[in-house]
Amino acid sequence: MPPLLSVDDIRHAADTLDGKARKTPLLESPLLNQRLGCRLLIKPEMLQVTGSFKFRGAYNRISQIPKADLHHGVVAFSSGNHAQGVALAAQMMGIPARIIMPGDAPSIKIDNTRAYGAQVVFYDRATDDREALSDELTRKHRATLIRPYDDPAIIAGQGTVGLEIADELRRMKIHADLVLVPCGGGGLVAGTALTMATESPKTKVYSVEPKDFDDTARSLAAGNRLANAPDGRSMCDALLSPEPGKLTFELNRRLLAGGLAVSDFDVGNAMMCAFDDLKLISEPGGAVALAAALSGTVNTDNQTVVVVMSGGNVDAETFRDVLGAARLA
Amino acid sequence: MPPLLSVDDIRHAADTLDGKARKTPLLESPLLNQRLGCRLLIKPEMLQVTGSFKFRGAYNRISQIPKADLHHGVVAFSSGNHAQGVALAAQMMGIPARIIMPGDAPSIKIDNTRAYGAQVVFYDRATDDREALSDELTRKHRATLIRPYDDPAIIAGQGTVGLEIADELRRMKIHADLVLVPCGGGGLVAGTALTMATESPKTKVYSVEPKDFDDTARSLAAGNRLANAPDGRSMCDALLSPEPGKLTFELNRRLLAGGLAVSDFDVGNAMMCAFDDLKLISEPGGAVALAAALSGTVNTDNQTVVVVMSGGNVDAETFRDVLGAARLA
Repeated sequence: MPPLLSVDDIRHAADTLDGKARKTPLLESPLLNQRLGCRLLIKPEMLQVTGSFKFRGAYNRISQIPKADLHHGVVAFSSGNHAQGVALAAQMMGIPARIIMPGDAPSIKIDNTRAYGAQVVFYDRATDDREALSDELTRKHRATLIRPYDDPAIIAGQGTVGLEIADELRRMKIHADLVLVPCGGGGLVAGTALTMATESPKTKVYSVEPKDFDDTARSLAAGNRLANAPDGRSMCDALLSPEPGKLTFELNRRLLAGGLAVSDFDVGNAMMCAFDDLKLISEPGGAVALAAALSGTVNTDNQTVVVVMSGGNVDAETFRDVLGAARLA
Repeated sequence: MPPLLSVDDIRHAADTLDGKARKTPLLESPLLNQRLGCRLLIKPEMLQVTGSFKFRGAYNRISQIPKADLHHGVVAFSSGNHAQGVALAAQMMGIPARIIMPGDAPSIKIDNTRAYGAQVVFYDRATDDREALSDELTRKHRATLIRPYDDPAIIAGQGTVGLEIADELRRMKIHADLVLVPCGGGGLVAGTALTMATESPKTKVYSVEPKDFDDTARSLAAGNRLANAPDGRSMCDALLSPEPGKLTFELNRRLLAGGLAVSDFDVGNAMMCAFDDLKLISEPGGAVALAAALSGTVNTDNQTVVVVMSGGNVDAETFRDVLGAARLA
């Protein structure tokens, strides 16, 4: 099988995103390092345009639509971060976007997707088939479907996160032992791992998922794609994908050191830590990698650990609840 | 009178801080710009080491202590952000720090100052004279007093905020019409204004204060230093200085376009906006400049406005209360 994509595709995506996406910094807290006995470098993608990394892949993919098809616009299904990324990228290119979202998505995600000019169509997570719905909408409008992760151009766009990490580590003249990356469908971790495999081959890259949605971790262990049980629960609304993507798993099985999973309790404490030590708003799904580092899910003693925080689109009510509960813990 | 300091002192401070302080980015939100009808560029100093800009001045000042005096250590009085800046800078140089703090300072500020290895001495805002206390402690330990703002080396350190803003604006090839800067004793705004006067002389720089602590605004209007009434109230714990500094006012009267003041209500809404649109934790005092832009205290229509957010050291309880209240507004 020919390779799905190479680090050159990711470099090309970085050129496409230049001046459009934000190059996010690597942050660290001396107090946090002191408490943990390791060096944490935080990649804060909540500071990315639209409040999550998803804009990178969306813009890169949309920029590859043939000119003749562009005016028909795009369709996407998403719980909210991909939705906003696609909506803003479409707005920047002056084409229509139609986004299929679950009715129970956080209202900040729904409101912002509309504010970027997209038309939002709701579906029911329990009863509707979102892929069938999006196929129908795509055909009707002759639009281009922008998949959330299982697309080489999406993976290449998300991989620019890894490229920026590698560039910054080189500038700082340090070697990272571990890179921990939140994982839903697996596009971000696949792109990041592909970059690190070339740029820093001794660095181990791990996916991190919510406990009831650890399909990638179990699939990596089994060697083939396994789905999640349908009755799982997690507050990490961004990471509730049913199973690993085909393309993303093909990459992740080759590139990852393993898959980790964390509880909602650990996620809440990580959101509190981001508040206290980093001054960053993390949404639940955005905090799973930090949660893995803080909870000892992976050994970080005396290691240099890059933690990707993937997004910050959380409603104020949820955030207040989390801070309140973490305070009591 | 010879000039207190020049932009060369600020450039020298930037060299001193290189690799110690963080160069914070300029952030912006397309949605926020769209809502406000102007272009806001946010300078997020809550992402600075210790969670506020204060580390810049503290490190620069401490680095100028003669070698023979260094081992006696430093003394500072502060409501918490200068405290943390001095404590970490002293820790980095391996010298003792003794910090005089009000007993009602946010606990995150007290805890972190201690975590950076400083000894904390409490005083009562209402009954004790913090300057007399710090003089006594300084004499006793033959230590160096690190003033919070009325010191050329402190002002030069804080001025590196302005230098980074000017460099980034040049890189982005845009002109800023306004720069809005939180103001307590006036060191940050003085240093920033001094930089902008050289680097971008057509840019207007304003100080922003809490309504009951608008000593700089009134002093600028009067042409001489005026104190605040002793019974004022504000949740902006970082900005409760009694009157403008001597040196800072000497600079600010020459350099500022004017002084603005905002209510605690506007500050709460600005903290909520930072949460929603920027994914940043702002403490109350850190949000006054954003509050001035959002509330229409200064005309921003079609302008390019740099908003300095000066710190993010706020307790979770306070932050939850603010989000709850802003939600109801």
